[in-house]
Order: sequence, then structure tokens, then C-alpha cells
Amino acid sequence: MAVSIIGAGAIGLLFAAYLKKADVDVTVYTRTDEQAEIIRREGLYLIVDDEKTNVEVRAKSLASDETIEDEMIIVCVKQYQMNDLKQILRKNSKGKIFLFLQNGLSHLSFLKELNDCQILLGVVEHGAKKIAQNRVIHTGIGQTNIAYFSSVQMKAEPAFFRNWNQVQFPFVFRSDWYEMAAYKLIANAVINPLTAIFRVKNGQLLTNPYLRTLMRLLWLETVQVLRLPSEQLWDYVVDICEKTRANESSMLRDIEAKRLTEIDAISGYIIEQAKMQNINVPYTTFVYNSIKALERKNELSDKKEGRQNDH
Amino acid sequence: MAVSIIGAGAIGLLFAAYLKKADVDVTVYTRTDEQAEIIRREGLYLIVDDEKTNVEVRAKSLASDETIEDEMIIVCVKQYQMNDLKQILRKNSKGKIFLFLQNGLSHLSFLKELNDCQILLGVVEHGAKKIAQNRVIHTGIGQTNIAYFSSVQMKAEPAFFRNWNQVQFPFVFRSDWYEMAAYKLIANAVINPLTAIFRVKNGQLLTNPYLRTLMRLLWLETVQVLRLPSEQLWDYVVDICEKTRANESSMLRDIEAKRLTEIDAISGYIIEQAKMQNINVPYTTFVYNSIKALERKNELSDKKEGRQNDH
Repeated sequence: MAVSIIGAGAIGLLFAAYLKKADVDVTVYTRTDEQAEIIRREGLYLIVDDEKTNVEVRAKSLASDETIEDEMIIVCVKQYQMNDLKQILRKNSKGKIFLFLQNGLSHLSFLKELNDCQILLGVVEHGAKKIAQNRVIHTGIGQTNIAYFSSVQMKAEPAFFRNWNQVQFPFVFRSDWYEMAAYKLIANAVINPLTAIFRVKNGQLLTNPYLRTLMRLLWLETVQVLRLPSEQLWDYVVDICEKTRANESSMLRDIEAKRLTEIDAISGYIIEQAKMQNINVPYTTFVYNSIKALERKNELSDKKEGRQNDH
Repeated sequence: MAVSIIGAGAIGLLFAAYLKKADVDVTVYTRTDEQAEIIRREGLYLIVDDEKTNVEVRAKSLASDETIEDEMIIVCVKQYQMNDLKQILRKNSKGKIFLFLQNGLSHLSFLKELNDCQILLGVVEHGAKKIAQNRVIHTGIGQTNIAYFSSVQMKAEPAFFRNWNQVQFPFVFRSDWYEMAAYKLIANAVINPLTAIFRVKNGQLLTNPYLRTLMRLLWLETVQVLRLPSEQLWDYVVDICEKTRANESSMLRDIEAKRLTEIDAISGYIIEQAKMQNINVPYTTFVYNSIKALERKNELSDKKEGRQNDH
């Protein structure tokens, strides 16, 4: 099966490299001609510990009227970049299998506009860091959870699974997409904003008692809004913090690199859902405005320094 | 009238220098022998713009069984250092005039334990920065508001006022101590934690729309708890931010210098009062835990670097 990967950030490059290693026919769609050119010329470099693997993949920049022939499309752009893609995806949906890897749930309303296709959602638990246009470090080996986006529970694994699975790049099939996505959203809504506001690694949310208090207060709001008020989900979030204790969250890295964050897809989505249910979410509102404030502060300091944002 | 000043931080040194310039007989009580020795040897330096004035004052370190003979005692230590002083103040209260310059209202319950004395509260609106043990820069010329701490409104100015007043160091008498202190507390509860969490100057609370949103949410809680829900008080806080737009708040400076902050006297007090009235204060709870978390983070990074905290 031929696969098109849209978006060549850390996750896009990671998927491209591993799928190519599994003999999948891969095309990477980039935003810039420059990046496509480098990938074509030098190939992709996948770096795991001290091992560096070079793989060759097709690459081209995505045109606004692009026609995608491949049977499968993996969408790896950030949620806030989805808007630019909507027209292209609508146009290319017929007969396709889509796999969406965005954080949060806010892009889901758009997916209903895609016709005559199969849609899968993925939750990526790998750590990955893009260090150059065609170089990605696999910083943490996790797994990719995949589920059909469907109103009924789909219990049959898609066929391509067997081929994609690799020791360092496993896939796990989930029958309930909402549970899968909501779990990830809860972890993101609790861990990401706090680590970015206080510039701490994930583990410090547990060891600093005041951050742990804030984490619990945020968690309480989040599970109430998502209607999953189970203490198991607290253990789940604590467990992620422990396992990734030495890591910086993606939102912290975004703030440090003065990029836009995914706060709208995460806390913004919780606030929207809370409004519809008439629930007050002051802690979520605080962190939402905090991250927006930091983005704005970064934007202004960039202007002062005459820099351009890289989004 | 002879005046003892307890506490030789920025405000203590500022008062010592200006009162001495007004021919008041001043003794400064320091925490360390070292600082008292430097002040005795070199005098105090008061720096305003390009002008540097040297004044001689008595100085000694405060013993735990100190007997203070001077008629008036100005208490300039931080609220969180008050505990160490209580015994000394109780022992020396008879016949004295006290002037307390702490932020917040949380030290007031102790004042009722002082007998046979007059008590005044002061709210200092000067900017001052201590740059050495015996050197203080008067960074912003404001005023000192003073009121009797009393259950009845006291409309008569104390006599010493006329002598203390100076163009760059004016005193303003207030008849209602609660209003005076509560106004300052509201400004502190709104401006200080937000500027310290986001590492911004006071003016950015107004220009960054997300910080302005948080400022308003915090303000709403604060005025509700202090039972002063008047829109004039919003204008008052905005006005302070505008006038001090290029300044760093004292709490931001404390966090940057890895010192303890006055968060307990400010947001901690609001939370206590809210509990007694059964009011929910999530925004205040968020900033309280945030500042505590940053203090803890500073403490840990100090330990790592093998530094000692200077409190």
C-alpha cells in the first residue's frame, strides 16, 4: 500500500522513516519546497540512541490543488494548521484511508465532512525531536494507538497493521476511539499547560507539591467536562508523568522555541465543551489564558528582535 | 523624637536616610552584625537619580532580648519575618508609637496583642532598591500613606508628620486604615502574582489581552472577598499598572532573586478570608499555588547550585 504523509515535523518524519523501513511506499508532503528538496537529495535520517539510519522517500511540497493518488493519507500537521488543509483533504477523500494524528478532539467535527472514505485516529506516544529539515531523533520509544473514528465500536484490526509493526515502533489497535482520544486529551490538558507555564519537566509536576495541587485541580475539571470522573484516570496521568519525568512536554518546547502551541485543541476544546454543559472551569480558563499570554509575549519579543516566527 | 527602624531592607534604609535628612534621631536595627557594622562605618548612601547623599545613623543588630528606648518604632521587615519579632515587640510596646509598613493584612491580628501603645499602619508607594548593605536607590518617588489602626476613624494627623514631610518623601494621612490597606492589598493581589508568574513588567498586564483577562478575573474574586466590589477599584488597579508600567513588581524581583515572596500575606490572606465567608476563589488559589511552586523550584535549584538562600 502506498502512503502519503502530510506534514514533515517531528512526527511526520518519524512515521515516514519507520514506514519506509517496513517497506511501505512513502511520499512526504512538506510545507516548503526547500524541505522537500533536502529530503529528496539527502534522504531522511532517523536517529535512535547512537544509531543513525538513512532512508530514501519521495518528497514534495503540498500544492493547494494537490491530487493525491496514494491509497492512504496520514495527516501529521498540528491541529492549528488543519484549516489550510481542509480543502485538499475534501477533494482527495474518495476511496481513501485517512489516519489523523492530531492532539485533542477539536479537529473531529471537520472529519464528518470527509466522504466515501475510512477514517482512523491515532494517538502517538513516541517522543521525537526534529533537529534539521530531514533529521529526526526518536527520543522516547512508545507506541501508536489507533482506532476507527466511527459511531460503532470497530473491533477488527485494519490489515496494514501487521506490516507496520516494528519492535521500536509498535502499533496498538483500540476499539473505542473516544476513550482513546479522551485519555490522551486529559493527559495533555493537565500536563502540557502546567509544564509550559512553570518551565518544568514532566516529573516536577509530581515532586513539587504546589504543582501537584494545581495538577489535581485541573484534572478534576477536565474529567468532569469529558464525563470520565474515574480515579483510575488520575493514576493514568500520574503514571505518564512518572514515565516521562525527564522529558519536556511538547507545549513547553513550543513555548521555549517561540512557536504556537496546541492550546486551542486542548484547553480551548475543554472550555468549549464546558460552556455547552454550563460547567465552570476556572483552572482550565487560567491555563488557557496563560499559554495564550506566553504565545503573545513570545510574538512581541520576536518582533522586537526582528525575528520571524517559524509557523 | 527618636525613632528606631527595625529591618534594613530597601524600605528600612529608605526611611532611615530620609528621616535622618529631616533631622530625626534614627537607629537602624539590622538582622546581621555585619550589616550594622558597615552602616556604622560608612554611613548610609541614598541615591536619587544622579545624586548620592551620605547620612550617618546609629545601627545595631537586633538581639532577641532587645530593649528599645526610642519613642517610636517603625517596623519594616517583611510580613513573613514578623514571627521572629513578635516577642521583642510585645516586650517593648509600653508607651510606644508603632508604625507598621508590611504589605497585606495578615499581620494585623498580631497587633491586637500590643498593649499601652499607639499603632499606625503605613502603605509605602515609593520604589526602592537596595544595591548593597548600606546603599539604597530611590527608584520611584511616590508617597507614604499613614493611618491609625483603630476601630474608630481617627481624623487628626499625628504631630510628627509636619517634620517628616519632604518634597521627595511626602506623607499623606488617611482616616480609614481598612480602606487604605485594602486598596493596597487589592493592587498587590492582582498585580504581583501575575507579573511574577509571567515574568512581565506591570504595564504588560494591560497590553497583553490574555493577561488583562486574568487580571480582571483575579480582581473580581479579590474585591468580592474584601467586600469592595466597586468598579472604581478596577480603575485604581489599572491606573497603578499604567503609572508603574516600566517597573518590575516586588514579587517578580523576589522570584528572580530566588527570595521568598509575600504571597502568604497577599493571596494567602485572601484565601483565608474567602474560606471564612464560604466563597470559592479558584483564580487566587491558582496564583497562590503558582508562586509557592516557583519559590519551591527556586529553592531546589539553589540547593543544586550549592547556594544559600538569603533569607
